[in-house]
Amino acid sequence: MKAAQSPLLQQTHGLRQAIRRKAHTGVTSGLAQGAMQGNVVILTADWASEFLLYCQKNPVACPLIGVSEVGNFTMPELGHDIDMRHDVPEYYVYHNGEKVESRSDIEALWQDDMVAFVLGCSFSFELALTQAGLTPRNIEEDVNVSMFETNIATVPAGRFFGNTVVTMRPYVPKDAIRAIQITTRFPKAHGAPLHFGTPDAIGIQDLNNPDYGDAVTIKNGEVPVFWACGVTPQVAIRNAKPPICITHAPGKMLVTDLLDTDLSVM
Amino acid sequence: MKAAQSPLLQQTHGLRQAIRRKAHTGVTSGLAQGAMQGNVVILTADWASEFLLYCQKNPVACPLIGVSEVGNFTMPELGHDIDMRHDVPEYYVYHNGEKVESRSDIEALWQDDMVAFVLGCSFSFELALTQAGLTPRNIEEDVNVSMFETNIATVPAGRFFGNTVVTMRPYVPKDAIRAIQITTRFPKAHGAPLHFGTPDAIGIQDLNNPDYGDAVTIKNGEVPVFWACGVTPQVAIRNAKPPICITHAPGKMLVTDLLDTDLSVM
Repeated sequence: MKAAQSPLLQQTHGLRQAIRRKAHTGVTSGLAQGAMQGNVVILTADWASEFLLYCQKNPVACPLIGVSEVGNFTMPELGHDIDMRHDVPEYYVYHNGEKVESRSDIEALWQDDMVAFVLGCSFSFELALTQAGLTPRNIEEDVNVSMFETNIATVPAGRFFGNTVVTMRPYVPKDAIRAIQITTRFPKAHGAPLHFGTPDAIGIQDLNNPDYGDAVTIKNGEVPVFWACGVTPQVAIRNAKPPICITHAPGKMLVTDLLDTDLSVM
Repeated sequence: MKAAQSPLLQQTHGLRQAIRRKAHTGVTSGLAQGAMQGNVVILTADWASEFLLYCQKNPVACPLIGVSEVGNFTMPELGHDIDMRHDVPEYYVYHNGEKVESRSDIEALWQDDMVAFVLGCSFSFELALTQAGLTPRNIEEDVNVSMFETNIATVPAGRFFGNTVVTMRPYVPKDAIRAIQITTRFPKAHGAPLHFGTPDAIGIQDLNNPDYGDAVTIKNGEVPVFWACGVTPQVAIRNAKPPICITHAPGKMLVTDLLDTDLSVM
């Protein structure tokens, strides 16, 4: 994989620095465009191999792009200066599957037996959509993408199980077709949608009340299009109940130095 | 382009022979699977260059795969023994844009100044859909595919103009997404759909009353998916009113010796 070109590398480095010094605490959607962003899951080593298997069995919702050495908070394959304890705008901390706090860094919580996982994120295809004239509504409205828990079961692995979380972006059918083609090129960023149209067919009751993120406007003639989301493992973690687990807060991702296009196909 | 492999070549040759001797007069959907089928338009040379331009301007609805020499009823690039006067199960004959008769051959009508055009057909991706477990409903129900005139204008060229005709195949959204991916690989067979869902958004009033072909069952939870159709030029011909024009009857195509995959991408 190729590191981002210099001007973009300056952006990703600058953004991570701003996050590290807590100057940027918000969502990362639409920032450092062209650089791959990732979902973060941190577990202790005794839970890590089951989680690794869970990702392998659910590659659409959980496309792994990086796994750290045990106890090592760097992630050199995703960026030479990444510090997994500081470089996410907001972390969620779970004890026995229950969220107990959110933090702007986890230095005090880092343990020598921790393993960090980074999963591809649908933000990676948002630039490609935007460049095709299909700017996602959440970017247009400058809010976090809408995320919903569905009734689509993931494949369980060890103690990890649960339903798939999806992001939703509305498009008219013609543009949805183009968006399907474009996102198919990004299998490591959840790829093509799982569903479009009828929310209730996948267990979503109300598009105006997302489970995570913000509601967006759905215009007349548009249909909701649903992509698998890297928040899915957070549901599996709630179910698995590991003594400690740390994730990113939805929409507040790890910004890497890789290009979105590094993991695209065709 | 590679000719079809021997067993398939025997099928295509056998089917064309059966058509030629009028033993097969029905639709060709689902027959000689793997061999490319084509829409047919025959015009006199003084109309041919405008029609060629019309196809160039509307490549999704009118993907040209063959054009004959003036006055020559063979089409060697699509099959060494093809006779454009005999090898279509049913021909429609138009005078000044009005359909005046249908015929099982056009030998008596062939003129020395005629040019035959062959356009790719969505049947070419039906095998790929079937192999992916997405058998089109028209094949399941053994009827002609449903075709509808829409309000989607084509780009006019010379005297040729009109709205796009589409085929419709119903799928649940998950399968529609896969069908979009699969048909994207066949740009010379109309490629990805133009629309899905709401028929009225593209000017279709009643899915149970197709303008050509047969109605098919739409099951609960399925959405109609619409692909551009090679019957589109027949509308443009009605509008252009050439003194004489000959086409295939909808669903009764020219079966070629090319493989569907010859013109697929990726």
